[in-house]
Amino acid sequence: MAEKFPEPLERLINELSRLPTIGRKSAQRLAFYILKCPREQPLALARALEQLHERLGFCPRCFYIATGELCSICADPGRDASQLCVVEEPQDVAAFDKPGAYKGLYHVLLGRLSPLQGVTPEDLKINELLTRIKDPMSRVQEVILATNPNVDGDATALYLSRLIEPLGIRTTRLGLGLSIGSSIEYADELTIRKAFEGRREL
Amino acid sequence: MAEKFPEPLERLINELSRLPTIGRKSAQRLAFYILKCPREQPLALARALEQLHERLGFCPRCFYIATGELCSICADPGRDASQLCVVEEPQDVAAFDKPGAYKGLYHVLLGRLSPLQGVTPEDLKINELLTRIKDPMSRVQEVILATNPNVDGDATALYLSRLIEPLGIRTTRLGLGLSIGSSIEYADELTIRKAFEGRREL
Repeated sequence: MAEKFPEPLERLINELSRLPTIGRKSAQRLAFYILKCPREQPLALARALEQLHERLGFCPRCFYIATGELCSICADPGRDASQLCVVEEPQDVAAFDKPGAYKGLYHVLLGRLSPLQGVTPEDLKINELLTRIKDPMSRVQEVILATNPNVDGDATALYLSRLIEPLGIRTTRLGLGLSIGSSIEYADELTIRKAFEGRREL
Repeated sequence: MAEKFPEPLERLINELSRLPTIGRKSAQRLAFYILKCPREQPLALARALEQLHERLGFCPRCFYIATGELCSICADPGRDASQLCVVEEPQDVAAFDKPGAYKGLYHVLLGRLSPLQGVTPEDLKINELLTRIKDPMSRVQEVILATNPNVDGDATALYLSRLIEPLGIRTTRLGLGLSIGSSIEYADELTIRKAFEGRREL
């Protein structure tokens, strides 16, 4: 385990293994692959890494990714400003924002409450969310709490609903049930229970 | 699948997904993680990538990684030059070169023969291996073909043995059998057959 490679390789392995889901062994394999590559490939990756923060940041209003001042969604006057969908990560916005699915605005928390991992409300963009809703210019009538349907996501949604409901704003949570195209045979118990609870007249 | 992000992010995702074992979805997850990181982390990775080829290369004799002219193993006068262990990748040298395991020299092929993937003898350091063995100054008496014990590795070893044996040099292959500390219960059929074939008197 304590194999030692020459410093430049060791350094690349260390930097790669700081990324999530990449352990020491994967980092080692990637580093050796990169060493065998033509030099242009790691240089192109290096340039992409350098330019990321230079040319991209978070929208100061909703914390989705933005290249300019506001993100493309906040800057779009055609969106329905009465609905605000609260998500954990920018990726979630990308998943929701498909044609025809949702026309409102977003607010990205940049994380989820997780006492076990030491993530507290101050670490998330919760104050910014409340400021946004309380703004006298705000047209928000409904906050859709679209955090993930797991322990941390549910806890985050509950925490937020207790802060937002007293403001007289409707708070909702996304529907739970079977996924379209999935097999009932492989659905887990909890999803099936939620699907029964959420059953509707035909 | 065809989600489109702003160009700097899209570019990083593309570069990351050129790495082996990293698909588009993993690359996306890594890129978003990097965007949330403090800026220093991607810059440190970028620097490590830039410096890799600048400060590191392959040994011109054995094709293991080297910082200077020859690698640390070829440059070590204490190694037994009568034994040459032929491996596929530099990582294999790192795995073999543990204290007490092997004292000879190495030759890295930088790959394995794989007709299906279009890897032919010309793509590997095979000519360099033969030149090295045929060199009048060579003290090689045994070539240990330590390519991986799978289809491609076996084919590569067989190909090499047909080239090397006629030179009057002993060619051997690493022993196959049960791994130390493994469970017989979980050993595969072929390994068990090889372990029987390779059984020894106590």
